[in-house]
Amino acid sequence: MTSALDETKALQLRFDEKGLIPAIVTDARDGTLLMFAYMNREALDVTLVTGQAHFYSRTRKVLWKKGETSGETFAAVSILTDCDQDVLQIKVTAEGQGAACHTGRKSCFYRKIVNGELEFIDNEKLFDPDFVYEK
Amino acid sequence: MTSALDETKALQLRFDEKGLIPAIVTDARDGTLLMFAYMNREALDVTLVTGQAHFYSRTRKVLWKKGETSGETFAAVSILTDCDQDVLQIKVTAEGQGAACHTGRKSCFYRKIVNGELEFIDNEKLFDPDFVYEK
Repeated sequence: MTSALDETKALQLRFDEKGLIPAIVTDARDGTLLMFAYMNREALDVTLVTGQAHFYSRTRKVLWKKGETSGETFAAVSILTDCDQDVLQIKVTAEGQGAACHTGRKSCFYRKIVNGELEFIDNEKLFDPDFVYEK
Repeated sequence: MTSALDETKALQLRFDEKGLIPAIVTDARDGTLLMFAYMNREALDVTLVTGQAHFYSRTRKVLWKKGETSGETFAAVSILTDCDQDVLQIKVTAEGQGAACHTGRKSCFYRKIVNGELEFIDNEKLFDPDFVYEK
C-alpha cells in the first residue's frame, strides 16, 4: 500500500489538471486551521523565495499575496506536503492583527453545522472588513 | 466585502462541479491537521447521521468509511465550514491507534519541504501498513 510518493525524500508535487494544489494554512504556533486556498507553481515558488504566503486566486486568475489589501500578511514558516504529495500545509505566523479571514476573524472556520444550520463559534473580529476593504 | 454566505446561519454549502467539497480533518483534542479528503453530499450526510467520518473516493468513485480496512476509524465530533461555505473542517477523535495516514502515521503531513526536497518530521508508525492492508 505504500507508494513511490509516500516514503521518499524526493519532492514530486502533484498539481491538478488546472495546475493547482490545495493549500491548508495553519497557525505555526498553536496549530489552528486558519484558511484554505490554492497555489499554482508560481505561488509556491514565490512563497518559498519571499517567505510570505502567496496563493492563486481561481476567481481573479492571478497570483495573490495574502494580506495585500488588509495588511494581514502571513510569514510562511514551513511548508509540508501529504503522503501522496497532492496537498500542501502552510504553517504561518501572522504579521498583522492575526486575522486570516476576510471577515476579520482569526480563522475562516468560525461556524459549525448544528441541526442543519450554522452556529457561530467565533465572532471576534480583529478588524472591521467594511473599513479595511472599502477605504 | 461580506457576502450572503459569510455572516449567515443558513447552511448553503457549495459543492463543486463534480458534487464534491474539500474536507480538512483535524484532531478535535489538539488541533493537529490529520488528513485531507473530499466529501460528496452522501458522505457528509452519512457522517452527520452516524457520527463516523466518511469521505468520497475520487479514485474508486465510492463512499468510503475512514478506517474500514485499517480499523483506524474516526468519530466526527463537529463539522465546520468556512466563510464562503465551500470547504469543510471535520474535527475528529481517533478510535483506533490514532493513525489517520495509510502509512501508519498520525498525520498525512509528515514531511516538510527543505531546499527542494522532503525532510521527514514524523517517522513514528502507529501500525504496520504492510500488515494492515495485505492481511
